[in-house]
Amino acid sequence: MAAGSSFGNNFKVTTFGESHGNALGAVIDGCPAGIGLSEDDLKPFMLRRRPGQSEFTTARNEDDACEILSGVFEGTTTGTPIAILIRNKDQHSKDYSDIADIYRPGHADYTFDKKFGIRDYRGGGRSSGRETAARVAAGAVAAKLLKEFGIRATAYTRSIGPVSIGRYDPGESNSLFMPDHEAFRKASDHINALRSEGNSAGGVIECVIKGVPAGLGDPVFDKLDARLAQAVMSIGAVKGFEIGDGFEAAFSSGIDNNDAFIPAPDGSIIKATNHSGGILGGISDGSDIVFRCAVKPTASISLLQQTMDRNGKPRDIMIKGRHDPVIVPRAVVVVEAMAYLVIADALLAHTCDRTDIIKKALKEE
Amino acid sequence: MAAGSSFGNNFKVTTFGESHGNALGAVIDGCPAGIGLSEDDLKPFMLRRRPGQSEFTTARNEDDACEILSGVFEGTTTGTPIAILIRNKDQHSKDYSDIADIYRPGHADYTFDKKFGIRDYRGGGRSSGRETAARVAAGAVAAKLLKEFGIRATAYTRSIGPVSIGRYDPGESNSLFMPDHEAFRKASDHINALRSEGNSAGGVIECVIKGVPAGLGDPVFDKLDARLAQAVMSIGAVKGFEIGDGFEAAFSSGIDNNDAFIPAPDGSIIKATNHSGGILGGISDGSDIVFRCAVKPTASISLLQQTMDRNGKPRDIMIKGRHDPVIVPRAVVVVEAMAYLVIADALLAHTCDRTDIIKKALKEE
Amino acid sequence: MAAGSSFGNNFKVTTFGESHGNALGAVIDGCPAGIGLSEDDLKPFMLRRRPGQSEFTTARNEDDACEILSGVFEGTTTGTPIAILIRNKDQHSKDYSDIADIYRPGHADYTFDKKFGIRDYRGGGRSSGRETAARVAAGAVAAKLLKEFGIRATAYTRSIGPVSIGRYDPGESNSLFMPDHEAFRKASDHINALRSEGNSAGGVIECVIKGVPAGLGDPVFDKLDARLAQAVMSIGAVKGFEIGDGFEAAFSSGIDNNDAFIPAPDGSIIKATNHSGGILGGISDGSDIVFRCAVKPTASISLLQQTMDRNGKPRDIMIKGRHDPVIVPRAVVVVEAMAYLVIADALLAHTCDRTDIIKKALKEE
Amino acid sequence: MAAGSSFGNNFKVTTFGESHGNALGAVIDGCPAGIGLSEDDLKPFMLRRRPGQSEFTTARNEDDACEILSGVFEGTTTGTPIAILIRNKDQHSKDYSDIADIYRPGHADYTFDKKFGIRDYRGGGRSSGRETAARVAAGAVAAKLLKEFGIRATAYTRSIGPVSIGRYDPGESNSLFMPDHEAFRKASDHINALRSEGNSAGGVIECVIKGVPAGLGDPVFDKLDARLAQAVMSIGAVKGFEIGDGFEAAFSSGIDNNDAFIPAPDGSIIKATNHSGGILGGISDGSDIVFRCAVKPTASISLLQQTMDRNGKPRDIMIKGRHDPVIVPRAVVVVEAMAYLVIADALLAHTCDRTDIIKKALKEE
Repeated sequence: MAAGSSFGNNFKVTTFGESHGNALGAVIDGCPAGIGLSEDDLKPFMLRRRPGQSEFTTARNEDDACEILSGVFEGTTTGTPIAILIRNKDQHSKDYSDIADIYRPGHADYTFDKKFGIRDYRGGGRSSGRETAARVAAGAVAAKLLKEFGIRATAYTRSIGPVSIGRYDPGESNSLFMPDHEAFRKASDHINALRSEGNSAGGVIECVIKGVPAGLGDPVFDKLDARLAQAVMSIGAVKGFEIGDGFEAAFSSGIDNNDAFIPAPDGSIIKATNHSGGILGGISDGSDIVFRCAVKPTASISLLQQTMDRNGKPRDIMIKGRHDPVIVPRAVVVVEAMAYLVIADALLAHTCDRTDIIKKALKEE
Repeated sequence: MAAGSSFGNNFKVTTFGESHGNALGAVIDGCPAGIGLSEDDLKPFMLRRRPGQSEFTTARNEDDACEILSGVFEGTTTGTPIAILIRNKDQHSKDYSDIADIYRPGHADYTFDKKFGIRDYRGGGRSSGRETAARVAAGAVAAKLLKEFGIRATAYTRSIGPVSIGRYDPGESNSLFMPDHEAFRKASDHINALRSEGNSAGGVIECVIKGVPAGLGDPVFDKLDARLAQAVMSIGAVKGFEIGDGFEAAFSSGIDNNDAFIPAPDGSIIKATNHSGGILGGISDGSDIVFRCAVKPTASISLLQQTMDRNGKPRDIMIKGRHDPVIVPRAVVVVEAMAYLVIADALLAHTCDRTDIIKKALKEE
Repeated sequence: MAAGSSFGNNFKVTTFGESHGNALGAVIDGCPAGIGLSEDDLKPFMLRRRPGQSEFTTARNEDDACEILSGVFEGTTTGTPIAILIRNKDQHSKDYSDIADIYRPGHADYTFDKKFGIRDYRGGGRSSGRETAARVAAGAVAAKLLKEFGIRATAYTRSIGPVSIGRYDPGESNSLFMPDHEAFRKASDHINALRSEGNSAGGVIECVIKGVPAGLGDPVFDKLDARLAQAVMSIGAVKGFEIGDGFEAAFSSGIDNNDAFIPAPDGSIIKATNHSGGILGGISDGSDIVFRCAVKPTASISLLQQTMDRNGKPRDIMIKGRHDPVIVPRAVVVVEAMAYLVIADALLAHTCDRTDIIKKALKEE
Repeated sequence: MAAGSSFGNNFKVTTFGESHGNALGAVIDGCPAGIGLSEDDLKPFMLRRRPGQSEFTTARNEDDACEILSGVFEGTTTGTPIAILIRNKDQHSKDYSDIADIYRPGHADYTFDKKFGIRDYRGGGRSSGRETAARVAAGAVAAKLLKEFGIRATAYTRSIGPVSIGRYDPGESNSLFMPDHEAFRKASDHINALRSEGNSAGGVIECVIKGVPAGLGDPVFDKLDARLAQAVMSIGAVKGFEIGDGFEAAFSSGIDNNDAFIPAPDGSIIKATNHSGGILGGISDGSDIVFRCAVKPTASISLLQQTMDRNGKPRDIMIKGRHDPVIVPRAVVVVEAMAYLVIADALLAHTCDRTDIIKKALKEE
């Protein structure tokens, strides 16, 4: 212990809540004073993650309304902890007793039992995707902070199963958050085909962070990409993370993989290419930060599977009810939220990296 | 700040030292009392990372001898901090003044300057691969602890450029730590071809951790795979991380990716397959933990490259001297060390997960 | 940052909430699974801290009802974060606009403004004594955990102004939590005399923790008494902390201050005296842990005081409304709560101090 | 675990080393780049703590020379970890085997054994006062940082046994660091009388920190005075801590204890008195920070004492050799060092408290 529900050293988020408990939420300790913030700032983020919004997401009826309980006074953050509450409303709609003693394949049922000797079997409890609602709310606050510094993260679906986007189309808007209309159509067909047989699909999410100044991130263990990796891999169902050229870099050569430094029109230093993905030696280099993550197919499927129960007896299982045939689209905003949390944390850390910066910070006007 | 030189919550490692400073080292706070430990336990790990040991590694002459300064009394750990000192011996051999004001492409020179306003330009300073010597020493201590609990990590080279291993051959021993003799031969050719033109190669490292009991790792942000991702991505030159099927899982379907639970001969619960890579919901499931990481080609190459200096002037650079034409083989033991650090930390955390475990722990014999 | 709203490394508490915001609360991350817990366990603690319960406490009408939002399933802790919500009900009863731009002497108004550039001026905001409601709720959970291990803390008023208790009378029950009836009577007179002139009183709280096994606490910076000192000094209005003989030890001599070790009837080792207060070298020694803290007189008084406003103008202030003429009695349970938090944290830490303990912990039955 | 050898969140110090091991030392992670630093900066601090310098300190011959191993390049801090090494030179001079299985009264022998199941019995191991050498070295670095911001801590002996200083005399210099010549003479007599009978004395240390700007420290658990309390109570032999009027405040009344705010000649806000000791609501108020701590009499005395051995057998003990008859004078610089560590940590934290401060910090010149 502690049970790992906190993230960040400066912009520090602690989340709580189970899928079918009374409520979920987040407490942010370390958000600077002086940012305009209201529940309206959280809404657009929460809406993108919400269940029941398209043919590819579950019908669970949650409005995911956020109540800010503390840390904001007259519309401005005060520097004290910002607590956000999200009530579960539709948590009593289903009977989970038939799976209470069965370990669902691909889920955390078995491992929670081995760790804690007990599990809240209602819809996955703390290991449910519903846990991410609290992350998204916290990420929205980080986004508001970073907006003050011109930093903006954008995540989107890069591929579903074998279907990848071609050229990024910023004008395209669809329920898969896949910025290429043709790819969206094919991906929809792919998902529908799998769903019709009770099966599910995976995919890849890409995230681009613009406006990050050079110099963020710590050397050694807390490299900016290492923190992004932890942040993104901590989202349930994510199985891989890569930055810049990622696994492709293993096939490249030094001369092809290195990015030349060149002068920008304004005289500053930029990179001619961005194989590094915006981070060198764990520290942001001023280019766009670009990373990808792999999302596994939804584990809850209605096909017959072989498993075991708590008493060590083999059992068959067919998971009833509607489940998302693909997690990817709802995870997009979660990836974005985690990116914001990492960058916010690193930005705050940078203010005490150097004596000259500290002196500027503390100088009375 | 802090500058990110600590890792772990329970088995907590802090490293220090630059490439060409007086010394490197690590302090481990939280290693349990009662483990037999001497400098001899560190040697085999240090030897695998040492420069100058094969045709593919630099000739820098360092014996990497470790001195244990504290925390061990009469051959046994006492529970107090274990400090390990590694003197730099060959640090004065080279003149770095010609690159002192130039930003080498693919290196952290530029980003350190932007972050700290100063950099130790001698061989990369803190961003040098030499920093990993301290990690490896600390990992060796974690390995000694985990041996008491039957846990063993093994990392090896899975691919160099386009050359992958076929079947894993445990008897094969070579300077690339590539457990397939035929692949080793081809990879050597690949590296030599690139080196002869002043270029360099990348590759993929795989690690298998055996003997990890089910129940380690924390839900949410400190998932065991998220911590492994941070640990491994924090090694310089690593650009991607994946667990189990990793990025392949994005192409799979639910029924193919889920691992069925089945009874083991001894009545316990095991998985029929291991697509998950030994972790479900962020908690170890009792199967082997299997992960891979992508290592980029060595950034230091002797080909002509375009870059900038500290004054914003375009410059050409050809990096002189011998450099490893591939980092992968020397990174193998670093990956293993980081795996040990993560598992040791999670093992210690597990002892207070449950009231019944705590009661067993504190019961007087 | 972070803004210091978390406490503990293993049993980790994060609190939030302002005096006149929507709600206060606490999130406990790291409470072991398997403890029986319900809102009824929190009530007795909350009742002892509640306003409006005697002639010496403010009339603010708060029932301080706690709602457990997460981390408990079917009456048992699950190992996931326990979030506790306490709604503010009476927060709109008063108009604070007249003090919005004035710095009250003895309060944190000025320092919050200097730190954050903004303050929630309604009743002190985050610096209000109301913040302690969340600590007490968290402490009640720690108390429930420690009860399983036979550990019990008891705090009480040792003195009010010049009036000290004589012999401790466990049967005595009064609104000052002062376990000596005669002292209680005199202390009441002292307080009433000060109150009648618009003034206020201070006092000393003592706490005894019984049942703590020898071996808890960490050497060096996290000594058990150092953590108790931080915990107790972090309660608003506390100005001093001492353990065992405390400041008296400075007047003593080695032979008088050392506690002889002697055999207990059961053959174990005990101390003949307890000048140390139950802690030696920062680690519990098996004796009762005994500490005291000094509480300053209530800063909110209705006497005329000289002060300044936000614009740097001198102002006179007479603080209106009813305020506690003494904080001590309501702080008693807060001290107890903080003691529980420290001991719970240390107890969990101890489970991984030694290889033999860890092996006992992880042994399958 | 962790075993508590780290202190600070931003300016983060980790120490290691036992009394009679190979070496002691400290690693500082988070010291800002750009401060001039060399071993000469540490010397004056180390000299004040060193053994063998007066009639009141042990004759152990240690020069306490510090070697800076990392984090400094060409005389300037680089932002990377600063490791400091202090070799033990005189550690083999004594035979401790006669006390190896005996628990010395007033020492941590028994509690280390209960915690770790093993102890380094040579001179107290990690619980020895020698551990403070590493703190002092780290504190000297913090002092150098804070000097850049006009902050200066001064600790001195306020009393020895019953002998207190009267008026503070800044010109007085003596081996007890007691700034009143008459008091020094009386205190020397007091100590000598106790020493001649094999006994020892205690005392009180006071520390004044000047130049701390208003606004440092975090609300709630990490109040600046709470952190100072932890820091100072974590020094072995310290039994009490108080800030401002401290325990005297318990006897005071609101009107006497509150400090009026008044205009300074330059128009800023100051306090007419300083009962608070420079901290209000856990945040510095711009006045001098003033605190005191109680130091118990040296536990190692040559009088006959009753104790037990590891086998539970009663034993008599007379501790041989020369020991400091009073710890106070050597603890003075340790208190000062801990004060510097706390203030440095709080100063760095303040740079990200507010959006406007962060914007100033990150603005390009």
